[in-house]
Amino acid sequence: MIFELVILGNSSATPTLHRSPSAQYLKMLDHHMLIDCGEGTQVQMQRYKIRKSKIKHIFISHVHADHMLGLPGLIFSMNLMQRTEPLHIYGPDALFKILDLFIELTDNHMRFEIIKHVTQTEVKEVIFEDDELKVSSFPLYHRVPTTGFLFEEKERLRKLNMEACEKYEVPVSSYADIKKGKDYVYNGTLIPNTTLTSEPGSPISYAYCSDTRFDERVAKNIKGVNLLYHEATFLHDKLARAIETKHTTAKEAGIIAGLAETQKLLIGHFSSRYDVVDELLVETRAEFAESYVAEEGSKFTLC
Amino acid sequence: MIFELVILGNSSATPTLHRSPSAQYLKMLDHHMLIDCGEGTQVQMQRYKIRKSKIKHIFISHVHADHMLGLPGLIFSMNLMQRTEPLHIYGPDALFKILDLFIELTDNHMRFEIIKHVTQTEVKEVIFEDDELKVSSFPLYHRVPTTGFLFEEKERLRKLNMEACEKYEVPVSSYADIKKGKDYVYNGTLIPNTTLTSEPGSPISYAYCSDTRFDERVAKNIKGVNLLYHEATFLHDKLARAIETKHTTAKEAGIIAGLAETQKLLIGHFSSRYDVVDELLVETRAEFAESYVAEEGSKFTLC
Repeated sequence: MIFELVILGNSSATPTLHRSPSAQYLKMLDHHMLIDCGEGTQVQMQRYKIRKSKIKHIFISHVHADHMLGLPGLIFSMNLMQRTEPLHIYGPDALFKILDLFIELTDNHMRFEIIKHVTQTEVKEVIFEDDELKVSSFPLYHRVPTTGFLFEEKERLRKLNMEACEKYEVPVSSYADIKKGKDYVYNGTLIPNTTLTSEPGSPISYAYCSDTRFDERVAKNIKGVNLLYHEATFLHDKLARAIETKHTTAKEAGIIAGLAETQKLLIGHFSSRYDVVDELLVETRAEFAESYVAEEGSKFTLC
Repeated sequence: MIFELVILGNSSATPTLHRSPSAQYLKMLDHHMLIDCGEGTQVQMQRYKIRKSKIKHIFISHVHADHMLGLPGLIFSMNLMQRTEPLHIYGPDALFKILDLFIELTDNHMRFEIIKHVTQTEVKEVIFEDDELKVSSFPLYHRVPTTGFLFEEKERLRKLNMEACEKYEVPVSSYADIKKGKDYVYNGTLIPNTTLTSEPGSPISYAYCSDTRFDERVAKNIKGVNLLYHEATFLHDKLARAIETKHTTAKEAGIIAGLAETQKLLIGHFSSRYDVVDELLVETRAEFAESYVAEEGSKFTLC
């Protein structure tokens, strides 16, 4: 599976017996990543059978407690488990100040390197890139510096037609070029690439937007994303509270999804005042039909 | 009940699905207190129905992750719940450096005051005292500055004999003096205090010792304590590891209990290598018969 997202927590503010604060596990291509890491995330990872040792990248949106208090404990556990592989952490400057002090004062002899990638909230920026995947941060509009994250698969390589490749005796060493679109010469005859390959599927993308006040600029930065997670802390009757605390209502999350022209919207980060969240979903769906609740433990896939 | 202790977590190092890191709720007389606060403590408090708002004193032994990572989240939740009453926190200097930075960087507008009581590891010291209760910190011997905590009820007041008080028409305004041992004059006749009161029970005491290397000086500082919680991280066959990491073995915990002449020992802070802890208890009991496992969720009372 090219894309697998597991919701580890979807609550705002306070963890409870039945709801954990923000954290998501994202496997995209060969990358195992965490997005946000509220208190108790390492236990949630055990619950949903996600191995800590696999995680190489952790993206933290902002330094509010419910988005990052689980990070020091997770790092210390990785250290206790004898991790030696570097860990890439992406987040605001304040996050690293807290982590550094923790590590300094708790006498932890770190066995692995933490590679810090400081995010900024001025402009959209590529913060990770390899041959297959690009990750960007972009500004969100909350009470402290906050970014969203956009995960984009790059243009896919063409799919080899193995039957044709065998017929024209293409050596394995040429596969890479042919996947990129090159033709092949067989006994003096040009075999066009379209004979040797077929169209690949479209690349996929995912955006994480939490926490933020409703803002159309968010939609612009993630236009056409396949799957969008957007916070929906309150029902729209609590709009004044959403404005005051710089959050988004369920209705507004649906509007953003429409503006962003996404295919599917996941809503989360629900205020603890809502025991059940059906009503929030109804409100969002009135604006954007393809909306779903990011239930804790649920898994979403794309291919 | 004068004394009620609820074990919220007893694991060392890493929280798991089935074991939480160190945290205890202690109600002693009218005081509601927490001792240590590992990651997830606020959820454990919900699980065992302990109201956050009641807690007025939090004692932190040292700044290792499994003893204090739950504290920032708990404080932020108290703040969200509109707490205005001051909170007393007792712990090493490093703890407050971490808390201060957290509060500064996360833009939390604190609605209540945190009153900081910095502990030291040079000598035993009284860190809280009122008419009924005295709390002392004392040095433990771990990898970072660590203290144990000794909770001592003060000498109890004599118990009023209500029948005699009514017979000799003692006004309520004189009860306080009579409880302290004063005689009473009734129509010119001296009524001795022993007629009006009976002997009170003995005051009770509790000591918390985690984390520490086995050390006889610990026993001296808590001599005669009624109930002792002492860490027992490893079986004695892992003595070398206990020495290296400055922890205590189950056998050694039993020896300390004997030296301290306590009535009852609770052991905890078990290494995650032990799925079941029966063997640790057997080893402790060979040294000190009145030993018990501080199981998560269990409650211990004294009166």
